[in-house]
Formats: sequence, structure tokens, C-alpha cells
Amino acid sequence: MSNTLVIKITGKLFDTNASLIKKYVEIFKDLSGKYKLAIITGGGGLARKYIGYAREIGVSSNYWLDMIGIRSAQLNAYLLISSLYPKAYPEPVNNLEELLRIMNNYEIAVLGGLIPGQSTSSVALEVAEALGVSKVIDYSAIDKVYDKDPLKYPDAKPYDKISIAKLREILRQKQLPGEYALIDLRALDIAERSKITIIITHYKKPNTIYDILRGENPGTIIYP
Amino acid sequence: MSNTLVIKITGKLFDTNASLIKKYVEIFKDLSGKYKLAIITGGGGLARKYIGYAREIGVSSNYWLDMIGIRSAQLNAYLLISSLYPKAYPEPVNNLEELLRIMNNYEIAVLGGLIPGQSTSSVALEVAEALGVSKVIDYSAIDKVYDKDPLKYPDAKPYDKISIAKLREILRQKQLPGEYALIDLRALDIAERSKITIIITHYKKPNTIYDILRGENPGTIIYP
Amino acid sequence: MSNTLVIKITGKLFDTNASLIKKYVEIFKDLSGKYKLAIITGGGGLARKYIGYAREIGVSSNYWLDMIGIRSAQLNAYLLISSLYPKAYPEPVNNLEELLRIMNNYEIAVLGGLIPGQSTSSVALEVAEALGVSKVIDYSAIDKVYDKDPLKYPDAKPYDKISIAKLREILRQKQLPGEYALIDLRALDIAERSKITIIITHYKKPNTIYDILRGENPGTIIYP
Amino acid sequence: MSNTLVIKITGKLFDTNASLIKKYVEIFKDLSGKYKLAIITGGGGLARKYIGYAREIGVSSNYWLDMIGIRSAQLNAYLLISSLYPKAYPEPVNNLEELLRIMNNYEIAVLGGLIPGQSTSSVALEVAEALGVSKVIDYSAIDKVYDKDPLKYPDAKPYDKISIAKLREILRQKQLPGEYALIDLRALDIAERSKITIIITHYKKPNTIYDILRGENPGTIIYP
Amino acid sequence: MSNTLVIKITGKLFDTNASLIKKYVEIFKDLSGKYKLAIITGGGGLARKYIGYAREIGVSSNYWLDMIGIRSAQLNAYLLISSLYPKAYPEPVNNLEELLRIMNNYEIAVLGGLIPGQSTSSVALEVAEALGVSKVIDYSAIDKVYDKDPLKYPDAKPYDKISIAKLREILRQKQLPGEYALIDLRALDIAERSKITIIITHYKKPNTIYDILRGENPGTIIYP
Amino acid sequence: MSNTLVIKITGKLFDTNASLIKKYVEIFKDLSGKYKLAIITGGGGLARKYIGYAREIGVSSNYWLDMIGIRSAQLNAYLLISSLYPKAYPEPVNNLEELLRIMNNYEIAVLGGLIPGQSTSSVALEVAEALGVSKVIDYSAIDKVYDKDPLKYPDAKPYDKISIAKLREILRQKQLPGEYALIDLRALDIAERSKITIIITHYKKPNTIYDILRGENPGTIIYP
Repeated sequence: MSNTLVIKITGKLFDTNASLIKKYVEIFKDLSGKYKLAIITGGGGLARKYIGYAREIGVSSNYWLDMIGIRSAQLNAYLLISSLYPKAYPEPVNNLEELLRIMNNYEIAVLGGLIPGQSTSSVALEVAEALGVSKVIDYSAIDKVYDKDPLKYPDAKPYDKISIAKLREILRQKQLPGEYALIDLRALDIAERSKITIIITHYKKPNTIYDILRGENPGTIIYP
Repeated sequence: MSNTLVIKITGKLFDTNASLIKKYVEIFKDLSGKYKLAIITGGGGLARKYIGYAREIGVSSNYWLDMIGIRSAQLNAYLLISSLYPKAYPEPVNNLEELLRIMNNYEIAVLGGLIPGQSTSSVALEVAEALGVSKVIDYSAIDKVYDKDPLKYPDAKPYDKISIAKLREILRQKQLPGEYALIDLRALDIAERSKITIIITHYKKPNTIYDILRGENPGTIIYP
Repeated sequence: MSNTLVIKITGKLFDTNASLIKKYVEIFKDLSGKYKLAIITGGGGLARKYIGYAREIGVSSNYWLDMIGIRSAQLNAYLLISSLYPKAYPEPVNNLEELLRIMNNYEIAVLGGLIPGQSTSSVALEVAEALGVSKVIDYSAIDKVYDKDPLKYPDAKPYDKISIAKLREILRQKQLPGEYALIDLRALDIAERSKITIIITHYKKPNTIYDILRGENPGTIIYP
Repeated sequence: MSNTLVIKITGKLFDTNASLIKKYVEIFKDLSGKYKLAIITGGGGLARKYIGYAREIGVSSNYWLDMIGIRSAQLNAYLLISSLYPKAYPEPVNNLEELLRIMNNYEIAVLGGLIPGQSTSSVALEVAEALGVSKVIDYSAIDKVYDKDPLKYPDAKPYDKISIAKLREILRQKQLPGEYALIDLRALDIAERSKITIIITHYKKPNTIYDILRGENPGTIIYP
Repeated sequence: MSNTLVIKITGKLFDTNASLIKKYVEIFKDLSGKYKLAIITGGGGLARKYIGYAREIGVSSNYWLDMIGIRSAQLNAYLLISSLYPKAYPEPVNNLEELLRIMNNYEIAVLGGLIPGQSTSSVALEVAEALGVSKVIDYSAIDKVYDKDPLKYPDAKPYDKISIAKLREILRQKQLPGEYALIDLRALDIAERSKITIIITHYKKPNTIYDILRGENPGTIIYP
Repeated sequence: MSNTLVIKITGKLFDTNASLIKKYVEIFKDLSGKYKLAIITGGGGLARKYIGYAREIGVSSNYWLDMIGIRSAQLNAYLLISSLYPKAYPEPVNNLEELLRIMNNYEIAVLGGLIPGQSTSSVALEVAEALGVSKVIDYSAIDKVYDKDPLKYPDAKPYDKISIAKLREILRQKQLPGEYALIDLRALDIAERSKITIIITHYKKPNTIYDILRGENPGTIIYP
């Protein structure tokens, strides 16, 4: 599907105030005239709160903890949908087959998550692979990829460009429900096998998508 | 369906800490041995937060604002389900026909909401009517029905028992999405036409359900 | 959804002969070139017959009696659909979320009913609210709103225009399944909160829709 | 599925008064304690009325005319369901895969029809074949099979027993939507290939099912 | 639905090598610019293999044997879909109501089968009837209709044109799951009642569809 | 869900003759009296054939190639289901939420696959995690885990027991659609995070499941 943008937004967007969310809504309305948009929202603070609740009331199954994360991300997705209908499909899309069924008839599709054990990044890569799109725009919690987690290590070195193979080496952190790092191994596997480029940019700079569409690099390009 | 309890819980339960939610989970597990349970959760603070977000990003349609309320209530429902499966049907039930399909095979069904323009109370009354149950246990934000809103008027007079007709007179407040009063006119219409009794008790006293099952009255009985 | 007409037709249309139904089909085909149509059909005599059957064979639950009314209305809806496909979505729409999903891709959607405890008018108002339409065209069993039920009181006084608040005062009749009055309180609640105007006209004068579209008033305008 | 009865009832039952329908409801409730029941209802006069309407408003497609017949039969099915829930699955079953999904969990399933171009008899035979049941009890509009249509020819000769092959020769009438004869060729094909016996009895004698269950023959046995 | 082609392809296509399948994909892509396509694939050798497996492991129910045939045909359908998306609906269509729902929004729909007891030809005729199309292009295992089965009888006489009535006389073979002859009685019934012409051509000559669209007759025309 | 066995069977089973499949059917029927079974089938030779076809007709998308693999595995699943109904749910289960919905009411559920980019092993681990089962019985193409691929290296050394961490080091092969190695990294991630033990045994020795149920080790135990 040429002319389709796959856009992942960290759930952190929904932990801020509504004005930033409103900015994204304006951008999506503007872009949806020229592009089809497949938007993937993370669970953010809502996911962490409800996953925390679940652990406290005795839930230890990773299936249920992940599903609570997915359902939280779907509430964030629904918030976007409420302001984008009728351009947007009126419900969070639940699986890839439903995505392919509706993309013909809608300009915007919004997903929260697909299946337990997947990060929001993996979902975005699966969406890109299913739609035959070779690029994912990743509004992340950091502005660039660093050799170490910049939120923990001030001396972390930023990359403008990095290969999937190189990044894979860096990514040895453990993935636990709700607290995914920058991107996970599984997402990189999909990007590699389907030659999908990931462009990391900071979620607090929503306009950087226009730079990307002009071929510029506001953050880090992860290339296959 | 004899031996079925219909239990409505105000969304405020999910604004507190997990320990009170855990108490409810224990009670439901205990009761589910002897009764079938149909539980209806409100949206609480989560609904108000996301409805507020939606208004700020330009959503004014009562359909979408109500649907955000329903989806928030369904996340609260999903939290309960995660700790009650396999006794509970593994998803929030979306409509009355689905409820009737699954009640044969599950001990517990949990709903968030059914359709825009309905309070959590109306949903509970529709559930009771569909299941042929003549009583709704309403864990409310107040311990009793008063002649005025006790949260606003300290001199409000409590009722142990009150008829639907009498309560209807008291209830002249405007219903707006997400900020429903004690109970709404529509809920009373359903209770009246299908002769359903509503027992109000305070959500901070989860054990009062055992008093009710022994025929006692911990709060207010609203009778047809 | 600009350019969308929400049209309610009393079930009585289907108690007459086919020639009047055919007239409506021609009008809908004509209008569907310029407008999207969301049509809501009542159950009429078919609903009353089958609800009567149900009572006789021992069904007393208002859930089941209302659902039989909805299913009867859906058979009437299906009759219209059979003559309007492929312009019309090929099945009676079951809920508001399905309505929003299909309205992008079809010129005509036809509904029978949504949930027990609702009149055909409430369904029409919920449809208008969900689609963001500020007007409902109500082909009713009477030509105008009167201060009393004209079918029972010959001296009933007609209104050209009436406010929702004023009409609410007049509407103190009891609502029982299958025998709804002109319009019910719940429908007015939705019209009021979403500022929807209802235009009453007589179902035996199908062409009056063209007057309405020219801004004229063939019956009574109920305004928020 | 041993211990399952497949019961076809002509739509004419629903053209009579409710007392006969009530009789069937009592029998089904009684039998459902010992047997699982798969009940197939015809469209009867309702189907003919609405098919007639459809033709008058310009519908000539056999697909749509048959589907109106199926939907009418489903309203008759729904009437039975309303009085048999929670023993009965709460909706008319739409296809054989859904039938197999629910038969494990419900004592009674009721169908109206499956696909255009099929008589109610074919539906009953497909149901028996799918459930692995070797007998269909056919409450027909005639008490026995005759060598000619007894409604048109007073000298028609009755059979107590007749082979499928023999009956096939007799059955050269044209099948048109809504006006099926006793049984159609397609139904006999299914009965033959899966060795299913059909027991014809008159719908005005509902108690004859007890004779059949005792191994007696109140009407005609059509054997493979 | 004017401008729609209904095309049946024998499952034997999928027993050959991929190059012939590729030819069909190119033709469908080319035609889908000017026509809507409803394509019905047979089960072929895959169906026979898995039906054989099923018999060997003890399955004797014609329901299950036919459903294995349908699921095999759906895998063949899915293979075509994988190369025709996004022009094609992304899944094998399961029933006629789904077909009518999607044909508005997709250029190509592919089906494997609908219900047990039906040949691929019957499915194609039901599809044509539902879509209001008066012609079915039947890529068959033989180039023409003969008075006897040419695969068994070298002296079989070919027909350029044959009436449904005449062909019905020839068709006295027994239909068993997976081993259908040229066309079955049921398919002819549908063709007759809805006046649908069937054009037989050989599946090893995919380009003959262009002859047919020019009004020529590469094989046999079966007319009502 | 205590008393539930999660059993993965390599697709190679369906490349052999039916007698081995029949053996498995007998074992599953026997076990289903004492255990609930969740069975996951691979795609085997059928998947490779159809994925090969797809590549030849120009399909390069990993989404579609994987989905063809999943649909092939679902045909294998359906073959098992046809001989296990009514103990088995009558269709291949499509996702984890459907699995949890049906496990209450069926003794056996059979899956083919869940989502592109997953091996059959990952599916089995996700199923075990969702059902809260701490063991997966993996009928694999090899009898034990070796330090190198025994199909390629005769001197490969077998393990009776091996930790997930140790196996992870061995597993550096590239995963490509349809040609998965013994087990993939993603499956080990799920096993590790939810402490699930995998017992490898050879698919040509179906009875080894009884050894496993007696606590013996016919192959290799991969432990968290």
C-alpha cells in the first residue's frame, strides 16, 4: 500500500496534558488528506497503573498483565479515534486481518496492541509488514538512539544512523510487560526480514513528521 | 435465571487503591460458588479524565463522550476479569444478547456499559431485566438514598426504604455524560416496568452484600 | 456527517399495502444520490402480533417482548433493504458502532432497533447523535403534535412548533412495550442534550420530505 | 451426537393461534430434559406476506426473496426461543458451524434457515447430517405422504412407508421461493447420502412426537 | 451489480504448477480495472487428499468430509488473494451476506465454498444469483459439455450450446463429496430459476475469458 | 487451568500417511477424558508447498507468506477436529481471547497459528502462558535437543536436560517463514518469562506422551 504512513506513538503522550494530544490530532487530520495513516498507540502511564493494580490484586499471569496493557493502549487509541472519525475507523483495530479489511475504506486506522508478549514497536513493525510499507515513524520517549539508555546514563552517545544488526547487539535488556526499552529484539527481527526502516523522533516534537516526509532526519534512522 | 446476583459497582472503586478492589475479588470468588454473578462497573475517575481529554481536543459529540465513558468502564471491568478467570467470561460483555449467550457457561460476567445515553444504573437494570432477576445490588458512592444530594447538602434526610415513584420526584437533576447522580430516571423506568428492587449500599463496605443475602438492609431499598 | 438524513418511519407503514412502501423506496433511491440516509423502521402490526403471541405462550419478560419488537422492526427494515441494495447496507444494522463502521461505504443504512426499553424515536435520536446530525425526520402516525392524543381526543390542539421542554410536560403517558405514544421522554432527553430538531410529518404523505428539505414545515417542528 | 432430536415444523404453525404454539413449547420443555433438540421453523404465512410485499415493490432477485423467507422463519424461531430460554440458545442459529459450536452448551437450538435456494426440509436434513443424527421428525402440513398432493387431489393415496428413491420419482414439482411442496429433491439427496430417515406427521398433532419416540409411526416414514 | 464477472475455477488448477496460477493472477489484475470479480475456487487434489486422510482416520460424516473440501478450497482461494490484495478482499468470503457486504468496497472477492452438500458450481450460481449477475464463466476440467463424460468415454459428443433442461437429462450421476462431475443438478436448478447462463471453458486456457468478453464461445454455453 | 495439556505437533505429521495421524486421534480421545487438551499443529509440507506457490506467483510479503503458513496449519488442525468433535471445538481457534472463551466448554481446542512472524513453538508457548499451564509437550521432528542441528550434522550431541539460557546461546540460526528450526528465540522468551518447561519428543513416537505424564523423559526437557 503505497502512500501509507505507519506511525507509532509512545503511551507517554497520554500521560501529558491534552494540548499535545490535540497537536497530534491536527497533524493527523492534515496528513490524512494526502496519506493513509496506520497509528499505533502505547499504553503509557495508564497501562502501568492498571498492570500495577492487577499485580496487587493477585494477577501474575503475563497473558493477563499484557492484555491489560493492550486494553489500556486501546483506550488511548479510542481517544484519538473520537476526534478523527469519520476519517478514522471508529474502533481500535484488533488484528492484522481486520486492518487489511478496513484500510481500503478508511484514511486512518488506530491500533492499541495485537497479542501478549509484543511491544508497541513490534506491533508497528507487524503493521508495516502487513501493509507492505517500508518505513515506520516512531515517536519515542527519546530523541535519538544512544549506545546506552540515556534516561539512566547521561554519557550515552547518540546515533544519527544505525544498522539493525548493530542495534541488536546493544539491545540485551530484559523485556518485561509494560516496561519495554526503546525497541525490542522481536521488532528488529521483523524490520530486518521485511527490510523496514525505523525513524526514531521525540514524541514531544510532533511536527518532526513533516521533516521526515521531506526526507530529513530529526532523530535516528535504524536501517535494515 | 434463579440464583443470579446482579451487582453494580460505582467507578469510584477504581479511583481508590488496589486493596479495596482485592476485597471485592475475594467476595466474588466466594459467592461464585453458590451464585451466578453479573457485575457492572462504572467508569469512575478514568472516565472523567478521558472525557475531559476528549473535550479538550475538540470532541463535543455526546456519542463519543459516552463511548469513551463506556470504554473506560470496560477497562475497569477487564481488571476484575483478569483476577476472576476462568470463573469469569474472559472479556467485558458488549451487549445483552452476548450476556444471554454466555451466562449458561460462565459463573461470572462483567460489563462496562451498553449504549450511549445510559448510566451504569440503567445498564444494571437492563441486565437484571434480561436475566429475569428481580433485585439489583448497587454499590454506590453514598450509603443511603437521601431526599437531597448528601455530597452537596449536609442536612439531606436518609431513607431506609423508598418507592420508585417517590424517588422519581426527587430525581430532577440533569444527567450529563460521566457525571451521573445517584440513579437516573431511565433506570427507574426499567425497575418499575419489570418490578426490580434496587438495594443501595456503600462501595467502601463490600461485605454488606452478605447482609443483603441474609435479607438485611445495610442502606436503602428502592422498591417498585 | 454533513449531508446525512436521519429518517424514522412508524411501523404502521408495513401494516398498509405495498404501494405506499414502494413510494418510499422510490423516494429513498432518489434522495440517496444527494444524501446519505439512515432509516429507522418501527415494528408496527407485526410487532404487536408477535408480542401478543409471546404473551399468550407465557412470555412476560420485557426483555424478550422488546426484543421480539426489535426483530419484527428488523424484518420491516430488511424488506426495504431488499429493494435498495446495493445502495443500502445488505442487513439491518444492529448497533451504533456497526452504523459508524458502514456509513463511510454505503449510501443507505436501515435499522430496526438497538436495545430493549427504547422506542423507535429514541433509536432515531441515538442514530442522529452518533452521526452528528442535528435533525430527525419522523414519519409518524399523526400529522402534527397535539396537546392531547388526537387518536383518543377529537379536540386535541395542533402545534406547528413546540419546544422539547414544553412537549416533555405533555408526555406523562406510561411507555409499555410495543405501544409507544408519539415520542417518549428518553428520546427527548437525547434530542435536548445534543440539540437535535425533530420534524413530525404523517407517514401517509411520503413526499413531505421534499418540503422539509426545502425548509418548509409540513407537520410539527420539535426544537431543543 | 446421540440423544439429539432434529425437529422441523412447517411455518403454518405460526399462522394459527398461539394456543397450538404454546402446546409445542410445553412439549419442547418436557423433552429437553432427556434430549437435546435442534428445531427448524418454516416461514409460513409471514414469509409469503413479506415475499409478496417484496415482489410488489419491485424485488425479483431469488436471493432477496429467499432471504426474506429465511428472516421471516427466524422471527418464528425467535418467538419459540423467547419462551424456551435459558434452555434454548438465545438467538436463531445462522449457520451449521455456529450450530456445532453451541450444541455442546445448550439443550435447544432453533434455526429459521441457512442459505437461499433451500427448503425448510433441506435445512433440517443438513442439521441432522451435521449433528450425526439419523432421524428427522417433520411436522408437516399433511399427515402422510401421498402419491399426489392431497391439498389439490382428494384421491391421493397415503403411504405408511416409502423409500427415498420412490418418493423422488413422485417429486417432479417445480420449487419456487416460499411455496415449497412436501419436501424437495435436495432434501432427499442429503437424506439418501447420509442415510437419514424422515418421519412425516401433522403439525396439528404435536403430541405425535411421543408416539414416534416410542417407535410408533403416526404418519409416513421416508427411509433411505 | 452490472459490470461484475462471476468466475468459477476447478480445483485442478492448484494441482498443476504455479506458472498457470500466475497466468490467472495476471488476467484477474488486468480485468479488475474494468470489472468487479467474484471468483470461486474448487478444492482439487488438496481436497481429495485431506478427505482421503479423514476417511482413513475414521471420519464418515458427510458434513465433516464436505467441510474439509470447503476448507481446502479456501486455502486455494487464499493463495489467489495473497497475490491480488489490496484489490482483493483479504480473506476467503464465508457466506453470501458477507459477499454482499464487501462487494461495494472491493474489486475482487474470492470464495472457496459456502455449505456442505454443494458443488463448486452451485456456489458459483448462488454467487451470481445473489449479485444479480446473469452469466457464470466456468473454467472446468473439460473444454466442452459432452453427452457423456469425455474423461471416461472417448466417443463423447461435444455441444456448443445446450439448454439447462437438456443437460439435466444427461446429468444422472450420483454426487459424492470431493468427486463432483461437470456440474450438478442443484447448480442447474439455481441457473434455471434465476435465468443464469453458464459458459464452460477449459481451465488450461485462461485467456479464453477475453474471447467470452468479446461475445465469442470458446467452449459450451448452457442457457436457461 | 489445572489439568490442561498443551501439545504442539510438527506439521511433518501431516506429510506422512494417515495411520500415524489416526494414532494421535486415539491418544487424544483417550486423554480427553482426564485432561483438557490445547493442541497446536504446524503447517508441514502443505505450508511449504503453498508458500512456494505464492513466491512463484510473485508474493514476497512476509505477512502473506506467513499467513499462508498459518492457513495451511489450520487445515491440518481442521483434519484433527473432524475426528475429535464433539469433544473438540468445531473450528481452528484463531486467537488467544477465543481460546479462553471456549476452553470452559470444550475438552479439546486445536490451533494452527496466531499471527505472522511466529513459529508453531511460539504459538504453543503463548497458549500455555494464556491458560496458565507450566508445561508444553513438543512433538518435534527430532527426538532430542542437540548442540547442533542433527539433520545437518551427524556428530551433534544430545541433551537430556538443557536450560533456556543455554539453548538460547545455541539458537543463532536465522528464522525464515515456513522453515523454522527446532525452536525459536521468541518461544524461549515466553517460556522464560512465564517459567514454562518444554518437553521435546519425536513425533513418530506418539505414545511417549504417556511416559511424560508418568514423569519420565523420552526426549529433552528445556527448563526455565
